[in-house]
Amino acid sequence: MFTGRVIGSIDSTINHPWYDAKKMLVVEKTDAAGKPSGDYVVAVDTVDAGVGDPVLVLDEGTGARQIVGSTTAPVRSVIVGIIDEVHCPSRAS
Amino acid sequence: MFTGRVIGSIDSTINHPWYDAKKMLVVEKTDAAGKPSGDYVVAVDTVDAGVGDPVLVLDEGTGARQIVGSTTAPVRSVIVGIIDEVHCPSRAS
Amino acid sequence: MFTGRVIGSIDSTINHPWYDAKKMLVVEKTDAAGKPSGDYVVAVDTVDAGVGDPVLVLDEGTGARQIVGSTTAPVRSVIVGIIDEVHCPSRAS
Amino acid sequence: MFTGRVIGSIDSTINHPWYDAKKMLVVEKTDAAGKPSGDYVVAVDTVDAGVGDPVLVLDEGTGARQIVGSTTAPVRSVIVGIIDEVHCPSRAS
Amino acid sequence: MFTGRVIGSIDSTINHPWYDAKKMLVVEKTDAAGKPSGDYVVAVDTVDAGVGDPVLVLDEGTGARQIVGSTTAPVRSVIVGIIDEVHCPSRAS
Repeated sequence: MFTGRVIGSIDSTINHPWYDAKKMLVVEKTDAAGKPSGDYVVAVDTVDAGVGDPVLVLDEGTGARQIVGSTTAPVRSVIVGIIDEVHCPSRAS
Repeated sequence: MFTGRVIGSIDSTINHPWYDAKKMLVVEKTDAAGKPSGDYVVAVDTVDAGVGDPVLVLDEGTGARQIVGSTTAPVRSVIVGIIDEVHCPSRAS
Repeated sequence: MFTGRVIGSIDSTINHPWYDAKKMLVVEKTDAAGKPSGDYVVAVDTVDAGVGDPVLVLDEGTGARQIVGSTTAPVRSVIVGIIDEVHCPSRAS
Repeated sequence: MFTGRVIGSIDSTINHPWYDAKKMLVVEKTDAAGKPSGDYVVAVDTVDAGVGDPVLVLDEGTGARQIVGSTTAPVRSVIVGIIDEVHCPSRAS
Repeated sequence: MFTGRVIGSIDSTINHPWYDAKKMLVVEKTDAAGKPSGDYVVAVDTVDAGVGDPVLVLDEGTGARQIVGSTTAPVRSVIVGIIDEVHCPSRAS
């Protein structure tokens, strides 16, 4: 799992039917220092996240399918939480 | 899942029979800023994508097998959608 | 599996119910020389680790679910041990 | 899946019995431009590939086990095809 | 799978019981040219490897569990062989 920030969303009309009603968001990963890393994933939203929100992402198929409630969903990455705060003592001192 | 652009296709005559009727495309990943990253995957096409198309790729075996409709297919990466638009407000401002 | 050091924790109120009672820690990976790598994961704590502890992390869904005792848990990364010592002869000589 | 080129083979006498009769090849990955990337995997050969051959590699356990015909084989990477040609229009122009 | 060299071992007293009788080794990955890469994994030893040994590592949960003989073991990386020789013709010429 990793932390990131929602930076956008994706529109796709020609795709697999499972994605039809899903909100697909672009999440830029943050690095160990909490800064944008330049890396990203496209993740299915499950917590009503929006652009700018700091989020927790699970990037594993079987766990992701549990989150979306389907053992056959073609999904790997899901947003599982909106982050209130990351406590990193060494960053603050 | 990640976004990319189809940059080519692969011809292979000596291979596993499952791949015989499959269209295998080379997809260059785009980075968080929407630019080519230099990284790529070879993905099975399921949405009739062609060279130049911006696509959404699922890179996970179990989900990929659901997409191609076989629980035993030797596949990890599939193109699951053609992207109409990526909305990234911070890129536009 | 890899070694790392706990550098922080995460608070999240809007998330999937499975995470409600879990301690989610930020673990910075160490490199082959034992130094911080700048890379990290968010891992579920199972050994009562705290900030500053050197830890061993398992980053694989099925094994992680065994550790947390649930075949359906949406989890990929868990802290499986607190490290007493890493013996690397070539580093010491 | 990714493309690469076979650069060598591995001899190992002390290993798990499953590997005894297997040809293990070193495959250097090619990048999006078709050049050697410096990265590699050790893959089980299933198509009688040899040093110098351009190949297609599947790097996922469950799919790899389907290729080798065993649901319990300790394998992740297999060579699934010898590549005849990679068509990348933008490279040629 | 990839090749590497054992560079050390790990002592951990506070950990998951499955690891109690296991030898956990630090394996530095070698790159495509056979040189140390700076990257590493912590792997369970199954072939009585020691510091300095060139080894073959399997880095996939389901296959790793087959190697250690348990479908529920919390493991992802195992040393599956000690390498006698890597034949790379282009390196020698």
